Amino acid sequence: MKEFKVIESKENSLIKLINGLQNSAKKRKENSSFVLEGLRICKDAYENDVVFEGLVVSNSAFEKLYDDICLLAEKSENCYKIPDNLFKKISDTTTPQGIIAIAKAIVFKKDAIDKKGRYIALENIQDPSNLGAVARTAEALGVSGIIVSDNGCDPYSPKSLRASMGTLLRMPVFTLADFSKEIAGLGLKTYACVVDTDAQNFGDIKFSDGSVLIIGNEANGITDETKSVSDMKITIPMKGNAESLNAAVAASIAMWEMMK
Amino acid sequence: MKEFKVIESKENSLIKLINGLQNSAKKRKENSSFVLEGLRICKDAYENDVVFEGLVVSNSAFEKLYDDICLLAEKSENCYKIPDNLFKKISDTTTPQGIIAIAKAIVFKKDAIDKKGRYIALENIQDPSNLGAVARTAEALGVSGIIVSDNGCDPYSPKSLRASMGTLLRMPVFTLADFSKEIAGLGLKTYACVVDTDAQNFGDIKFSDGSVLIIGNEANGITDETKSVSDMKITIPMKGNAESLNAAVAASIAMWEMMK
Repeated sequence: MKEFKVIESKENSLIKLINGLQNSAKKRKENSSFVLEGLRICKDAYENDVVFEGLVVSNSAFEKLYDDICLLAEKSENCYKIPDNLFKKISDTTTPQGIIAIAKAIVFKKDAIDKKGRYIALENIQDPSNLGAVARTAEALGVSGIIVSDNGCDPYSPKSLRASMGTLLRMPVFTLADFSKEIAGLGLKTYACVVDTDAQNFGDIKFSDGSVLIIGNEANGITDETKSVSDMKITIPMKGNAESLNAAVAASIAMWEMMK
Repeated sequence: MKEFKVIESKENSLIKLINGLQNSAKKRKENSSFVLEGLRICKDAYENDVVFEGLVVSNSAFEKLYDDICLLAEKSENCYKIPDNLFKKISDTTTPQGIIAIAKAIVFKKDAIDKKGRYIALENIQDPSNLGAVARTAEALGVSGIIVSDNGCDPYSPKSLRASMGTLLRMPVFTLADFSKEIAGLGLKTYACVVDTDAQNFGDIKFSDGSVLIIGNEANGITDETKSVSDMKITIPMKGNAESLNAAVAASIAMWEMMK
């Protein structure tokens, strides 16, 4: 069993670091790390070879979940035990389970994108619940990976990870710094999902290997720049008074058509 | 301009009634009414001939939104003006806009179900966000109506209405008291959406008029009773480590296949 160092002060730098990682995408970027909270997601990460830089457990979790914690501790460079009331201060949930891992940022380089794969790309998606839901559906339907723009919500935020039910730890996620420029240069056929009336009906498209579907921002859709570099504009025809579909719903229907 | 009665006490019975309607499905049932909060959803309801039993506005909304309020007041039996701080106590939002209508319950009798229609049915769906998302997608894809079980979440709760972007005021919603028994007797072909491996693949089904897709509870799926009375079991084949799709996502893909 690894040694568990004891932290008792909320002024401790590790406590401050975890609070930063929980709440700020900027801090996650600066530190090249993110947090995983709860036993299930930590075990998910463990099984997917995510690198743990630290493991922090509450005193009561250490008692109750001893075997699981020993397993997780194997993979962690540093392990810490802290009082329950201090754990509450670093937890993102109202009833904390008492386990947090600091994980090393997962980075997929875009040259690892498979030219014969089928991908979903999200341009400036802001709602982590949407991102998480898209990831969950993408995995279930067998999509090769997720491509996101740098200005969208962070795939490794607590909310995104939770909404994805851990999927975001299992799927490759590629981040593009300059989305409109880079998306066209990946060697994939690009399909922009739009609400424009001159776009082709989704149901009529035959997708082939080497494709990427692009879904735009919740309020504004795909940018003009990205539309202009896309190979094809496709749409889900809409009836009634509905103005648009929820982004995650549109992405789900789109991925279903691409993968079936 | 209608007369606006003034209420100033939080002990007033109307204030208590609105709090009840905001928070309790039981109270909504007892009173055969529900609340609509915010200008947009009230106008949506106005345009869809929802009956207003009362209109309650804050003093500052009365100033700021005078023209809109006059319009809504035309349709309301009783109108009330209350202080802003009292309005906060009956609001379901953190920054209230200052408009609440008490609407008469909308009841669709099941004999109004079109035998040639295409419906989505939700058995014991518990999350109002899922119900709202399903309704929004259903309207966009041209689904004839929504059928729900009596034990699921209330379609006319503030959360369901908000998630549906008002769609639930525009679409017929039929509630079945004994879902498994009644769903088979509607004269529609019933398709149970399941994760069973012996079910048929969604992509292979040709849907015809007079169909209903059944989606089950978020955690447990469709009940055995309902499965046993369904004409066909269909599934979205799943890959990877995904255990299931989100109920609203599964419903969206299912509706897309039924309607395209």
